[in-house]
Amino acid sequence: MRKAVILLSGGIDSSTLLHMISAREVGVELYALSFQYGQKHSRELRMAAWQAEAAGVCDHQIMDISFFSDLVGQGSVLTAIGSSVPDLADLTEKELDQPPTYVPNRNMMLLSLAAAFAESRGVQRVCYGAQAQDQYGYWDCTEAFVERMNTVFSLNRRDPIQVEAPFVGCSKADVVKIGLEIGVDYAHTWTCYRGDAKPCLACPSCVERADAFRGAGIKDPLVEV
Amino acid sequence: MRKAVILLSGGIDSSTLLHMISAREVGVELYALSFQYGQKHSRELRMAAWQAEAAGVCDHQIMDISFFSDLVGQGSVLTAIGSSVPDLADLTEKELDQPPTYVPNRNMMLLSLAAAFAESRGVQRVCYGAQAQDQYGYWDCTEAFVERMNTVFSLNRRDPIQVEAPFVGCSKADVVKIGLEIGVDYAHTWTCYRGDAKPCLACPSCVERADAFRGAGIKDPLVEV
Repeated sequence: MRKAVILLSGGIDSSTLLHMISAREVGVELYALSFQYGQKHSRELRMAAWQAEAAGVCDHQIMDISFFSDLVGQGSVLTAIGSSVPDLADLTEKELDQPPTYVPNRNMMLLSLAAAFAESRGVQRVCYGAQAQDQYGYWDCTEAFVERMNTVFSLNRRDPIQVEAPFVGCSKADVVKIGLEIGVDYAHTWTCYRGDAKPCLACPSCVERADAFRGAGIKDPLVEV
Repeated sequence: MRKAVILLSGGIDSSTLLHMISAREVGVELYALSFQYGQKHSRELRMAAWQAEAAGVCDHQIMDISFFSDLVGQGSVLTAIGSSVPDLADLTEKELDQPPTYVPNRNMMLLSLAAAFAESRGVQRVCYGAQAQDQYGYWDCTEAFVERMNTVFSLNRRDPIQVEAPFVGCSKADVVKIGLEIGVDYAHTWTCYRGDAKPCLACPSCVERADAFRGAGIKDPLVEV
């Protein structure tokens, strides 16, 4: 039986990845992991739960790792108390190599937890929705990052986990196009860093999402609603 | 100002590492991180707190990551409910490549948390007490593991963390010898996987500790007491 663990944030990339694997691998046993890590809102987690159910995930766990925001404290505007997420337009050139929305070492931490979850259940694949556009400032969304993580995991003598990141060479528009082909309902995804009732359309994430839908040639159903 | 984060379990290796750095690097600003990860007892955490104070650590945090035992569930006898730690003598040849006391991907997870903690505080070093003897079944205590983790961290464009594991080529007896030279008080360390009032002297960890003290030519003060 094929099995896979998906890191499911409830955003466009991980939701598309989930449905792509479900569509391409008939009978695959899917596990999904989402994290409450002290981000400013949990709207994306409700979207993750919706997508997991839609994809027929056999086990979706939302792990509370909110201690992580204590650990990194003021290290990111996504977790720091009293800080606000800047508009993309307000970021300086210097900040684009590692924007204030970067959370220190978050992705390695999430992958290491997903690998522990997978290894203890006899699952050998961890699927990770990182894509090329995320590279603008996130070293831990790159192809090199995934490759090097796999060289670490390959040392495990009994159950080496493989991280799969099939979107790592795609733009977000490419991801949306793939999702549209397989019928992903993007009205049930969340991208905005801010947690208001509607997307702010100005934060770095919102701007990327808008670019992606524009690039894919369709309207964002979340903005339409 | 030199700074370092130490992963401090309260055992022999990490306690020695802490005092070694404190002794060799005058004025170093030391941070220590310990974890409650759902292990069967927290005796070693009390030892960690004692050692941190003795070494003049400026910030010792004990993070509660007990959710981790839910995540790996029955994946390790150290975290599984209702399971007991086997005697070393009862392990089969097959089990020695990855003994039942192995916790799936725990060390990568702990290092990734320590790296996040360090990065958010402007500290570039994470010190890890892995030593050669641990290699008997733990892929994540090897020199290759540390080297490959560092190749991942080196991708960070702004604050690459370096993991230092100076004992990775040492036996546990070598570590004890180093500790004795700098006056580490091993009566305030804990090694036994079981959490009784005195070490059981039969679990894999106790047998290794006894071998280490025998190899260093002294009596274990914890057994004497």
